Amino acid sequence: MSLASDLTALLGAEQVDVSDAVRAQHSRGEAYAGAVLPDVVVFPRATAEVARLLAYASAHGVPVTPVGANSSLEGHTVPVRGGVSLDLTRMDRVLEVRPQDLLAVVQPGVTYPRLNERLRHHGLFFPVDPGAHATLGGMVSTNASGTAAVRYGTTGDHVLALEVVTPQGEVLRLGSRARKSASGYDLCALFTGAEGTLGVITEVTVKLVGLPEAVAAARVPFADALTATTFVTRLIQAGVPVARCELVDPYSIRAANAYSGTSFPEEMTVFLEFHGNAPGVAAELELARELALSLGAGAFEAATDAAERERLWRTRHTMFFAANAANPGLESLVTDVAVPISELPTAVTTALAECAAAGFEANLVGHVGDGNFHLNLYLPEDPAARAAAKGVVDRLTERALAVGGTATGEHGVGLRKLGYMEREHGASLGLMRAIKQLLDPAGIMNPGKKLPEAP
Amino acid sequence: MSLASDLTALLGAEQVDVSDAVRAQHSRGEAYAGAVLPDVVVFPRATAEVARLLAYASAHGVPVTPVGANSSLEGHTVPVRGGVSLDLTRMDRVLEVRPQDLLAVVQPGVTYPRLNERLRHHGLFFPVDPGAHATLGGMVSTNASGTAAVRYGTTGDHVLALEVVTPQGEVLRLGSRARKSASGYDLCALFTGAEGTLGVITEVTVKLVGLPEAVAAARVPFADALTATTFVTRLIQAGVPVARCELVDPYSIRAANAYSGTSFPEEMTVFLEFHGNAPGVAAELELARELALSLGAGAFEAATDAAERERLWRTRHTMFFAANAANPGLESLVTDVAVPISELPTAVTTALAECAAAGFEANLVGHVGDGNFHLNLYLPEDPAARAAAKGVVDRLTERALAVGGTATGEHGVGLRKLGYMEREHGASLGLMRAIKQLLDPAGIMNPGKKLPEAP
Repeated sequence: MSLASDLTALLGAEQVDVSDAVRAQHSRGEAYAGAVLPDVVVFPRATAEVARLLAYASAHGVPVTPVGANSSLEGHTVPVRGGVSLDLTRMDRVLEVRPQDLLAVVQPGVTYPRLNERLRHHGLFFPVDPGAHATLGGMVSTNASGTAAVRYGTTGDHVLALEVVTPQGEVLRLGSRARKSASGYDLCALFTGAEGTLGVITEVTVKLVGLPEAVAAARVPFADALTATTFVTRLIQAGVPVARCELVDPYSIRAANAYSGTSFPEEMTVFLEFHGNAPGVAAELELARELALSLGAGAFEAATDAAERERLWRTRHTMFFAANAANPGLESLVTDVAVPISELPTAVTTALAECAAAGFEANLVGHVGDGNFHLNLYLPEDPAARAAAKGVVDRLTERALAVGGTATGEHGVGLRKLGYMEREHGASLGLMRAIKQLLDPAGIMNPGKKLPEAP
Repeated sequence: MSLASDLTALLGAEQVDVSDAVRAQHSRGEAYAGAVLPDVVVFPRATAEVARLLAYASAHGVPVTPVGANSSLEGHTVPVRGGVSLDLTRMDRVLEVRPQDLLAVVQPGVTYPRLNERLRHHGLFFPVDPGAHATLGGMVSTNASGTAAVRYGTTGDHVLALEVVTPQGEVLRLGSRARKSASGYDLCALFTGAEGTLGVITEVTVKLVGLPEAVAAARVPFADALTATTFVTRLIQAGVPVARCELVDPYSIRAANAYSGTSFPEEMTVFLEFHGNAPGVAAELELARELALSLGAGAFEAATDAAERERLWRTRHTMFFAANAANPGLESLVTDVAVPISELPTAVTTALAECAAAGFEANLVGHVGDGNFHLNLYLPEDPAARAAAKGVVDRLTERALAVGGTATGEHGVGLRKLGYMEREHGASLGLMRAIKQLLDPAGIMNPGKKLPEAP
C-alpha cells in the first residue's frame, strides 16, 4: 500500500491531499528558496487524527513536517525528506474565552488577529504580533515575538498550557490554567520554540492582557544608530514601560517616502508606542520628547488619535513592501539576530556598511528594546551574489554571537541558521540532541531542522 | 577512605564541614518538620569545585542536595538520603552589572536584596521578591515569584542565561545575553524550577527593569472574597498594570491589629501597589477607587509617599509574625496553590470554612492577580491534629487541581507536594521522569524531590 492510501484509510479521504498544487504550496515557506515536495499533505481536524497519524508515522519511519500559516522565513516548513506535510490550519476553532481568568484556549490553526477579534469586546487582547497572520501553533513552535515584545514579552511568556501529541502518538496535556506554577518541569517551555521537532501542538491556552485605555505614538529621527539606541535604553532605564520601539534605517525611510509619497526625514528613525491611561501616556510622551531633544533628535512627532498614529507609523508598516518595490527583479534575503542592547549600534552600523561595501541594497529594522534586528538584502539571481550575501549574513551572525547574542531573536533556526548552532550552544547542543533523541527516537518530527546533525 | 576525607582531598579542608552543628543546620529548611542529617556539608567557592564534586558524586553514587538561603517551605533541602548538602552561599559575588544592557550576572549565592542594593544607583531593579532573603540560585531552582509577579512575572521570566553543572560534572552554558531568542531548545526553562534535581546552577544572568518614577499604594476592605477578587479582575481587564495586589483575610488583619496596635477594619482586604509616572499612577489610583467604591468597598485608603505607603501595607508585611504571635505554642503548616482567577473566591472561602470546621486557627494571603494563595494552619503537636490538617491541605489541593489549577504556585514541590504530581501532570509525568533519567541516570541530584517515584 502507498503512504497516501494508508493515510486515507486511517483518516478519511477529505483529510488527505496528493494533488500537485497542494503539495507545491507545502513545498516551502517564505523567503527561503529551497523547495521539496511532500509526498502527501494531511489536514487534520482533531487531536485524535494527529495522534493516529503520528503513531503510524513513527511505526513506519515517515517524516512529518507540521505547518500553520506557512509564513516561516527560515525554511522550517520545507519537508526536506518528503513524507507528510501536516497542515494544521483546519484546526482553527477558538475553544474557550474566559475573560474572568484572563485566558483563552485555541486550536493551533487560529491566527492571532482572529483571536484578537474575538477578545476585543471583553477589553482583552493577546499582545504578541509577529505579523503575517501567523497561527498560534506556529507562534508557539517558533516562540514568535514582534514589535510589542519589549513590553509584553514573547509568545512563550503567554503560554499557560499546551496539548501536544508526541511522535509516538501519545496525547499529553502540559501546564495548567493557573497563571503561575512551581510544579513539575516546565514542559510547555520545552515545546515552545522547538519548531515541531519534538511533537505536534494541538491546543494552546494563552494568558491575555487588558487593552490599554490610551495609546500614543511617536516618530523620532536621529543622526545615527548609536544615539537612537542610547535614547531607547535611557527611556527604559527611566522606568518607562515602552510598548513598542522600532528602529528603521534611512534607506527604508527613503524607499517608504517614494512608495507612499511622504517626505519624512531620511534618518535613522525610532518609532515609539506607549500604552496606559491618558495622563500617564501623556507624561511618558513628554519625558520621551525631552530626552530625545536633549540627545539631539531632529524632531519629535507624536500623536494620540488612531488615524494620526497610523500616519506616523505607516513608514514602519510599509517598509518591506516599499523596499521590495524599490528593488524590482531582485531576490531578497532576510535575516535576524539579537545582541545585548548596548551592542546594537555597532551591529547595525557594521551590517549596513558591509552591505554597502559588497554593493547590495539593504534595509534594516530593529526591535531596539530587545536588541533584535532584521536585515533585508537585495541581490541578483546569481551564484556569486548569493555567496557574497551569505558571507554578509555569516559575519553578521558570528559578530552577534561573539558579543553574547543569539543567531536568531525571533525567526527561528529552521534550515538556514543550522550552521551557527554549534558556535552558539557549544556543549549544551549535546543535551538538546539527547532530548530530541529521547522524545523522537525514530526521527520523524520535522527532520533536518532546529538542530544540526551530530558530527 | 570516607566521603569526608575524599571530599577534603578533592576540594580542600576549608570547603568541607562535618561538624554536628553545621550538619544540623543543613538537615532541614523552614516549615517542614522532617529532618535528616547530611554526611558532609560542602561550601564551594567556584564552578570548577562544583564540577569536581559532582563528577565524584556521580561516580560513587553519592546523593547531593543543593541549598541556598535554605528558606524552602516544602522540604526541598532535606538531604533525605544523606550524602552531601551542597551549600552555595559562599558563591556570592555579583559578577557583572551592565546597565546599558539591562542585565546582571551573579553567582547563585547572591540574595535578591543584595543585588537590588547594587542596582539602585543605576535606576534599575530585579523585580521578583519572594521574601526570606532568598538567593538567586534558589529562586531560579524553584521559579520563585512573590507579590510583584502580577506585573513583572516570575524568576523564570527574568532568566537570560545560566551556567549549570550537570550531574556528571560537565559545565554547560545555556541561553545568551540577548533579551530574546528563538535558537535551540529552551534549556534555561528546563533547569528553572527543577529544584536541583537536574544539576547545579552556578551562575545566573538576569534581565533587569527600570525603577518606577512613582509608586502608589492602597488598602481596600471588602465584605467577602468574591467582591475582592472581582475588583482585582476588573482592574486588570481595564488595562491597569497593577504592580502588586494582595488579598488578606480578616483573621490576619485582626491578628495584625493586635500585634501592631492598629485598628484597620477586620475585613477581606486588598492591598494594591501601582508603579509608573506620577500622573499615570494618580489616574490608576482614581480608577481603582471608583471601581472599589462601585463594588461596595468599605473604604479606599491610598498613599504615594514612602512612609505612608509603608503604614498602609504594614499589616500585609507583619501578618505571618502577627498570626504566629497569636498562636503561641502551636505548630504551623503552610501551603500554597494557584487556581484560575475566577476560582479564587470559592477556593479561599472553602479553605477558611474547612479550617474553622476542623477547629484550626488559620490565616490566608492571596496573590490575587495570579490566582495564587497561601494558607497557614495552626495546630497542636499531636498526630490526630496533623492528620486532620493534612486532610485540609489534601482537599484544598485536590479542589485546586479539579478546577484546572496547580498544586503549587510558587513554593515548589519539594517533599510535601509529591503526592499530587500524578494527579496534576498525568501522562506527562512519564516524560518528566524520562528527562530526569536522561540527565541524572545515577539519581544523585536532590533525590526524592520534585517527582514522585515511578509506581
